[in-house]
Amino acid sequence: MNNIKLQSAFFNLRNNKFFELFVVSIIIFSALVIGAKTYDIPADVLMLIGWLDTGITFFFLAEITVRFIGEPEKKRFFANAWNLFDTLIVVISLIPVEDSEMALIGRLIRIFRVLRMVSIIPELRLLLNSLIKALPQLGYVILLMFIIFYIYAAVGASFFGQINEVLWGDISIAMLTLFRVMTFEDWTDVMYETMAVYPFSWLFYLTFIFLTTFAFLNMVIGIVVSVMEGEHADEERAKALEEGTPTIETLHNEIMELKELIKKSN
Amino acid sequence: MNNIKLQSAFFNLRNNKFFELFVVSIIIFSALVIGAKTYDIPADVLMLIGWLDTGITFFFLAEITVRFIGEPEKKRFFANAWNLFDTLIVVISLIPVEDSEMALIGRLIRIFRVLRMVSIIPELRLLLNSLIKALPQLGYVILLMFIIFYIYAAVGASFFGQINEVLWGDISIAMLTLFRVMTFEDWTDVMYETMAVYPFSWLFYLTFIFLTTFAFLNMVIGIVVSVMEGEHADEERAKALEEGTPTIETLHNEIMELKELIKKSN
Amino acid sequence: MNNIKLQSAFFNLRNNKFFELFVVSIIIFSALVIGAKTYDIPADVLMLIGWLDTGITFFFLAEITVRFIGEPEKKRFFANAWNLFDTLIVVISLIPVEDSEMALIGRLIRIFRVLRMVSIIPELRLLLNSLIKALPQLGYVILLMFIIFYIYAAVGASFFGQINEVLWGDISIAMLTLFRVMTFEDWTDVMYETMAVYPFSWLFYLTFIFLTTFAFLNMVIGIVVSVMEGEHADEERAKALEEGTPTIETLHNEIMELKELIKKSN
Amino acid sequence: MNNIKLQSAFFNLRNNKFFELFVVSIIIFSALVIGAKTYDIPADVLMLIGWLDTGITFFFLAEITVRFIGEPEKKRFFANAWNLFDTLIVVISLIPVEDSEMALIGRLIRIFRVLRMVSIIPELRLLLNSLIKALPQLGYVILLMFIIFYIYAAVGASFFGQINEVLWGDISIAMLTLFRVMTFEDWTDVMYETMAVYPFSWLFYLTFIFLTTFAFLNMVIGIVVSVMEGEHADEERAKALEEGTPTIETLHNEIMELKELIKKSN
Repeated sequence: MNNIKLQSAFFNLRNNKFFELFVVSIIIFSALVIGAKTYDIPADVLMLIGWLDTGITFFFLAEITVRFIGEPEKKRFFANAWNLFDTLIVVISLIPVEDSEMALIGRLIRIFRVLRMVSIIPELRLLLNSLIKALPQLGYVILLMFIIFYIYAAVGASFFGQINEVLWGDISIAMLTLFRVMTFEDWTDVMYETMAVYPFSWLFYLTFIFLTTFAFLNMVIGIVVSVMEGEHADEERAKALEEGTPTIETLHNEIMELKELIKKSN
Repeated sequence: MNNIKLQSAFFNLRNNKFFELFVVSIIIFSALVIGAKTYDIPADVLMLIGWLDTGITFFFLAEITVRFIGEPEKKRFFANAWNLFDTLIVVISLIPVEDSEMALIGRLIRIFRVLRMVSIIPELRLLLNSLIKALPQLGYVILLMFIIFYIYAAVGASFFGQINEVLWGDISIAMLTLFRVMTFEDWTDVMYETMAVYPFSWLFYLTFIFLTTFAFLNMVIGIVVSVMEGEHADEERAKALEEGTPTIETLHNEIMELKELIKKSN
Repeated sequence: MNNIKLQSAFFNLRNNKFFELFVVSIIIFSALVIGAKTYDIPADVLMLIGWLDTGITFFFLAEITVRFIGEPEKKRFFANAWNLFDTLIVVISLIPVEDSEMALIGRLIRIFRVLRMVSIIPELRLLLNSLIKALPQLGYVILLMFIIFYIYAAVGASFFGQINEVLWGDISIAMLTLFRVMTFEDWTDVMYETMAVYPFSWLFYLTFIFLTTFAFLNMVIGIVVSVMEGEHADEERAKALEEGTPTIETLHNEIMELKELIKKSN
Repeated sequence: MNNIKLQSAFFNLRNNKFFELFVVSIIIFSALVIGAKTYDIPADVLMLIGWLDTGITFFFLAEITVRFIGEPEKKRFFANAWNLFDTLIVVISLIPVEDSEMALIGRLIRIFRVLRMVSIIPELRLLLNSLIKALPQLGYVILLMFIIFYIYAAVGASFFGQINEVLWGDISIAMLTLFRVMTFEDWTDVMYETMAVYPFSWLFYLTFIFLTTFAFLNMVIGIVVSVMEGEHADEERAKALEEGTPTIETLHNEIMELKELIKKSN
């Protein structure tokens, strides 16, 4: 009995606008604390920041607890990837880190707290979802890109490996170099070096740039456009349904009614 | 009585095409004067330019006065952001500047006069408005971008701070460096330096580039496309209404009429 | 009488597919001759090329004459900008050039002959026209861009002129430097130099990059998309009309017919 | 008789999902072998890789044979470009290479085996086809681009050839330099060098950048958008047909039926 009262009280607290705003402020504050630590700061301020850090960790623990108790169906709580993410961040923050190896991971976890912003603000969650939704459509394009990269990297590592060990030493280094070429970052320096040995190696770079930049960019733009159009069309249809403006479907139904009327009148 | 006559006379002057053209010419002339001052010019020409500057300031003062007196409702005058901008530019130009600190600001104000071009030409105002109108849609994208930048800058400043103080010294410098990476400006130099200490730091740069460039670009393109389509659709609908070409709505009304006719005939 | 026969004969020749193909081959050949001249070639081959050059000039003269005589209405011939361009190229090629100053222009004219390819092939002419048609829509965007460039160049030349004379010496040099910044070409080198004196000058570069790259790109994409959609819609409408697939307009007419039928039956 | 049984057995094997998966795994494995060879590996592993290579070659030979025997109409087998490609790759791999010249080609052929991934996975084949389908539309744009490049390269080689032999030596080198300028790769270094001799040569670079980057990009985007829209529209129409949602055409047919009914009732 007491349990249910507590749950509904926490459920209300969880959905309270002011509580949400307060959590967002704490997240922003924790982000500022993380930023402050990157500056040269006196030892006493550093100690204060240490205390603040612990305070924020326990506030987040309390907040997660409130949200968990406030959840009517406990099982559904961890079905939500964002809740899982929040819980993980908080739990790992609680583990005391002593040795320097783990300290690095502890620092990373504290930084990832800023990502809680996305889990709290619904609009950001929506934005990220629409991005993730576009990924499967890109799956085969990314595979094709990977095949192109792999083939060119294999050719590059086989032929240019002797020329420059740092850029073409093995296939993984060659793929990084090719990514550099794709971003046009000092790619002519890379090219002029191999052209000294293989005068026709400009063909290698030019075909690679054409294949990746051109083809990929076009396909990405195309996919984005088609996705956006799809969403736009959905929106318009939803709007039309809401406002009651007639669509081709309404016309169809109206004509069917007419037919019945005429048939009856005969 | 006299007041009203003066107002309507100035109202007419304000809306006169030749007056507008004259003001535009003076703005272009003032822009040329600003440009001329950046060249090495003899002292007497510089003095002439000083006189011209004062002359332009007083002309702009007169023009603003005309526009203010010509305004039927004085309160609405400052409700227009462009009028406020124009008045500010003119008023600050009038303050005599002596010490060198203020002289810099005085010079900046004179340069900003060129922006009056936008406040005078309606098409430019429209263009800027459409740009500003697209900003709120971008609000959450910019917030997401900022979060990505902040997290990567915090990671960068924490881990690479010891490697290169100039590029990763604190979180604000790190954000500038990340912006540089996003524009592909010598980003491999930045990467190779940190890869010497952390061999897997290429993952840091590649994920950052993918997240920012790719995701951001796609979303921006998507928003632009959807905005443009919205405008295009509005235009087409307006055109259809004007020209009287039938739409689905007309068909709907026509079928309703038919129904009435059939019902009556029964 | 003889004149008209000649004209119609030349008119037929002009529209002959093989004649067109032959002219295109000569243009390609003249392009190859121009390309060959940039290599180190022995003196006798150079002389041969000189002869070929004269030959090509006279062939082009003959071809223009054929097209002029073949034109039914002589006045309309020069109303076509491409005909004017062709004639100019040929006439200027005929002027013998002796001194070295003029020789440069003579060489340029010979290179511009390659552009005759565009005037001959209708598809290329169409492509160029569609590009030129998009320009007026961009007029105000270009003006806005120019204003942004001018203001930033004035600020840059005023404040950074003392720091680096080569990059910010006067307003025109500053505009070239800003164009370089817009293309992200070693823009951080430019920025770090001024940041040494004005630590907040990164704001100058970042706002400039945001204003130009972002705003401009978006607008251009938007315009292109809307233009393309317009053309696409026109095409579809034309196709629908041709193929006789029913449109909303056909439905409207059909319903009107129904109304008449029902009215008559009453 | 035996022949037909064998053929249908192989036909079934060829279309078996597990067989396809197995072939894909072998291709991935052969890609990994190719990648492994670019690392420094001990001699005995290298020998093992050699054996694996031969094994893969014979597996591919067997697979092609299965597919050929499984084909009901032998003539159609080589009409498929992908089958031709697969057969070529396998046949050339079989030729024993001794001298070092041929060894290079042998290595290339082994790398190209990775492309068999595209020939096996239908989605990748589809993606590539849609890319190739967009090429003819781009034909004239590419021709226009080539003309622009050729003219600018001719001008560059004629005027800047004496300034920098490496960048502007002849027309083909000049075209490579112009491609570099188009990718904004240290283009200001190229420009500042020629501006020392011809102060107005910035006009050459700026007009080139505007013509190529701007015009070309816009056209490409436009074509992509229109292609994608076309496909999108096709899809929607197909979906509408499948799901039975009424289109304008259905309405048209329904109204025609009404007409018949009314006519009969009169």
